[in-house]
Parts: sequence; C-alpha cells; structure tokens
Amino acid sequence: MRLSLKPSLDRSDYRYVHYVRTRFAETDAMGIIHHGNFPAYLEEARAAMLRESGFPYEEVRAGDDGIDFAVLEFYVRHRRPLRFDDLVAVHVVVEDLTRTTFQVGYLLTVEDEVRATAVTVHGAVDGRGRPSRMPAFMTDLTGSGH
Amino acid sequence: MRLSLKPSLDRSDYRYVHYVRTRFAETDAMGIIHHGNFPAYLEEARAAMLRESGFPYEEVRAGDDGIDFAVLEFYVRHRRPLRFDDLVAVHVVVEDLTRTTFQVGYLLTVEDEVRATAVTVHGAVDGRGRPSRMPAFMTDLTGSGH
Amino acid sequence: MRLSLKPSLDRSDYRYVHYVRTRFAETDAMGIIHHGNFPAYLEEARAAMLRESGFPYEEVRAGDDGIDFAVLEFYVRHRRPLRFDDLVAVHVVVEDLTRTTFQVGYLLTVEDEVRATAVTVHGAVDGRGRPSRMPAFMTDLTGSGH
Amino acid sequence: MRLSLKPSLDRSDYRYVHYVRTRFAETDAMGIIHHGNFPAYLEEARAAMLRESGFPYEEVRAGDDGIDFAVLEFYVRHRRPLRFDDLVAVHVVVEDLTRTTFQVGYLLTVEDEVRATAVTVHGAVDGRGRPSRMPAFMTDLTGSGH
Repeated sequence: MRLSLKPSLDRSDYRYVHYVRTRFAETDAMGIIHHGNFPAYLEEARAAMLRESGFPYEEVRAGDDGIDFAVLEFYVRHRRPLRFDDLVAVHVVVEDLTRTTFQVGYLLTVEDEVRATAVTVHGAVDGRGRPSRMPAFMTDLTGSGH
Repeated sequence: MRLSLKPSLDRSDYRYVHYVRTRFAETDAMGIIHHGNFPAYLEEARAAMLRESGFPYEEVRAGDDGIDFAVLEFYVRHRRPLRFDDLVAVHVVVEDLTRTTFQVGYLLTVEDEVRATAVTVHGAVDGRGRPSRMPAFMTDLTGSGH
Repeated sequence: MRLSLKPSLDRSDYRYVHYVRTRFAETDAMGIIHHGNFPAYLEEARAAMLRESGFPYEEVRAGDDGIDFAVLEFYVRHRRPLRFDDLVAVHVVVEDLTRTTFQVGYLLTVEDEVRATAVTVHGAVDGRGRPSRMPAFMTDLTGSGH
Repeated sequence: MRLSLKPSLDRSDYRYVHYVRTRFAETDAMGIIHHGNFPAYLEEARAAMLRESGFPYEEVRAGDDGIDFAVLEFYVRHRRPLRFDDLVAVHVVVEDLTRTTFQVGYLLTVEDEVRATAVTVHGAVDGRGRPSRMPAFMTDLTGSGH
C-alpha cells in the first residue's frame, strides 16, 4: 500500500477548492448521496485544479506525450452524509510526488462542516497504459502553497 | 424524429430476453430505481443479445471495420417503478433496419408485470464517429424470429 | 404516449439556461460522453430552474404536500456528441401543463452549436408515489416567458 | 482510520464469490472501466452474499429494526484495469466484527488474474442514520468459513 498521505481536517492545509452541487440522481434509498459518487466528485475537483492551473487535463491527454493519470489507489472516510442539493467544497492538495506517482488529499465540507476526507494515489501512464515519467508541471501543483 | 417503433406490451413479440438485477447504488431518495439507470440496463441487454448471437460487441468494435453503434435517439416510458433487488426481464427486438440505422424495442417486466417500455435508434459509425455501412449480421438479429 | 412537445432548435424559445461541465467519469470507450448521463444533466437543469425560481426541489419534496415530480417519459435525440470538459448550456422550457402532468423541453448546446434536444414528461406524485394535484407554482414556470 | 483488514491475494481466503459482467456504460475515454464503478461492484457482491445467506438486504432494511449498513470507509487498490465485457469474480470475506462495525475484504479477478483488492468498513445504523447494534446474523457471515 503506497497510500501514505493523511488528509488534514484544517482547510488551510489545502491549496485549491472546487465546489460541486450534488445531484438528485446521486441520492440513494437511504436518502443520502450514495458513496459511489465520491470518485466523480474528487475527479471533478482534480480536473478543475488542472484547468485553473493552466494545464487542462484534455491538453495533457492529447499532448505529445499523451499522459494519463491512472488511479492506483482510492480511499474515502465518510464522516457525515451528503444530501441532495448540498454545495460541497472539495479542498485539494497534491503531495508525495515521486518520479512516477503522486498523492492527492481531499477535505469535503458543507457550510464549513466536515463531511469526508479522501486520498487518491495516481501514476502517470502513456496512451497504452504503461508507466510514464511524471510531467514537469506536477511540481508546480504540489504542496499547500504556503 | 426517426423513432417509429411502437414497443409491444406482449412478450411474445420480442426475440431475446436478458435479466438485470437492480443495484442499491441505482436507487434514489424516492426509494425507487432512478430513471437515469435505464440507458445502462438497455445497453446491457443489447450487449447480451450480441454475445448470445455470436457477434460480441467487443469483436465488432475491434474488427477490420471497427464499427460502433452510436445511440441517435433514446425513449423510455415508465409505467411502474423498479425497486432495489428486482430481477428485471428486459425483452428485446430489433426492427426497422435501414442501410445505416436500426431501432430496438424493449419491454421491461418484473414477475410478468410490465414496468417500462423503451425504444433506441442506432446508427453504425466508424472509429471516427462517421456514419458507416451496417454490418451484414444485423439482418440475422432483426425481427421477432417467428 | 403523452409526449407531445417538439423541442425547438432556437435558444430564444427557452426560458432558463443552466450550465453543466461534463466529467471524465461520464466519458466512455468511444471517447465521448455516454448517453446514459443525459438524464442526470437534464435533472440538474430542472433542479437549478426550481432553485432560481424560488421553489427549491428539496422544499417541494419536504413540504406539507411532500410532492415529487416522477419521470413518466424520457426522450433524447443526440445530434452531435459531447466530450470531456465541455461546458454544456442546457436550455429549458416547461410546457403543456395539465392538472397532473407537465412536459419539459431541452436544447443542449456547446459554444452555440446544437448537440442534443430532449423532452421529459413528469407527473406530480405524493410521498407514496400516487398521482397528486400539481403545485400551483408550476404555472409560474410554464412557457418561454416572452 | 479504523480500516485494518489486509485483503489477501489468495482466493481460498475468501468465503463468497459473486460474478459481475462489466457494462459499456462503465468504460471511460481511457478505454478501461472507470474506477468510479467499483463501489457499485463491491456493493452488488455484498447484496448477493446477504441474499445467498438468507438475509436479503431489503428484508434487513424493512425489518422491525430497520437496519442499514452505512459505508464508513472505502479503499480500493487497482492492480490491472478491467475492460468492457469482462466477467469479474468478486471474492468476499467479512472480518473484524465489533458491536457496531464490520469490515469486508474483496479480491477481484478475471480468469484467475488479480485486477484489484478492496476493503470497506461498515456501521449498523437505524432508519435515522444513528449507530445501531449489529444484527446477530452478521456473526454467521464472518470469516473465511474454513
């Protein structure tokens, strides 16, 4: 298990924030947001971070190197449920950059109340899914920026 | 609107049947299966029909012609809701084959009770998404088989 | 088939617009947005319309009457595919209001190019899924507002 | 982090197996099954395990106690991608039962090749989402059964 990042509960430890409005389609019969939607929320936040940082994921994927960021590990701790129509702040920090992998930590809050923390581990892969060297711009995204 | 097929409520008008067990992840806060899952149910039934007929979709897609069946139109009429853990019989019939398109009719039942009817209209496209000639085997799949 | 609304290709025939950013999770192996995501896009636009109009769906559902808007029929015509990271304008108009049902028309565009049109037919139901009288505020939402 | 179970790579360490056929709707533009579908696969395997063991989740939820099994933590390690039309064997074992929680380990294989391992941590909750005593039958499901 490479997953080593411990996601902080303090928003100031995160560098980016992206807002996701939950959908009714994402609720389940328990009346809450089904946990199966969290991968999409986290991924949307990563894509927004790349876009705002000037490295849109579509360009990264379509570039000379044709790099994808495969998900190697995925971890979520649910602390309080999300509900329909919640505006969720997804706080994001990139850490633990190596030559081929990086880790992303997440703190999900609604009106400043913690709902979940999460970690994803990613590897750079080429168009055929083989491990590839990490693009240089990942260094710029790493850390809390303080 | 090319959609012309009127899906029958009589199971004997359908040639194939495929069973789908609904998932808890597919329920919503109304306690029923969310309507957004029907595209996946119908598609799973089409893939099963192709597999049983000896034309697995993966081989069709990977073949010399690299044909995909793009969804041009999609229609569902919900008659009674599906619920979690229902074993849904998806009855399928292919009709209205033209040089570039075909239509598929569906009847969804649970323990012989009608829950929904549906129609999809498909076009053959090549790997770049351009209209392509319909594969010859589609003729074999067409009609109720009686 | 109650579905009678013919969705216009002219944006000025629609009263509301809501923007949806497509997710990578919503792509498929054809490299486009899978058609199974359209129900969620249309529903998100309806929820935004209700929120902006002062009738949040959560309040409608939780109110004295506990009204839900069940989806009775669902139709989409796909004209050109959506791709990852597209910012989709979902134009919405409510029409054909009856005592128990209404229809919603949709025009989906990306940078003013038409991608799809759609229609949904809805019925007001109470907490047990039985048909219910339409809330009075639906009258305010109906029509193009011109 | 309560998550303590280390999922084995040896199928004989698992008590149940459930087969899931991947859907085309679950692929992404990388041509593989999107990682966001794994929560639904694991949940489907848990539901099948309960059904086969004589404790259908729907009855558990609807019973006097109205117990739900909330997902507290969720971890997946992706070792090799799944592809469209793969028949995935989801091997399941329940471990680490406490008064209010249990952990489930998973091994996902396709034709005996390991694709992923996973762990979920669950808590028994009542109809209002409050922690509840674990149903007695969970003891019967625990362990590898050897």
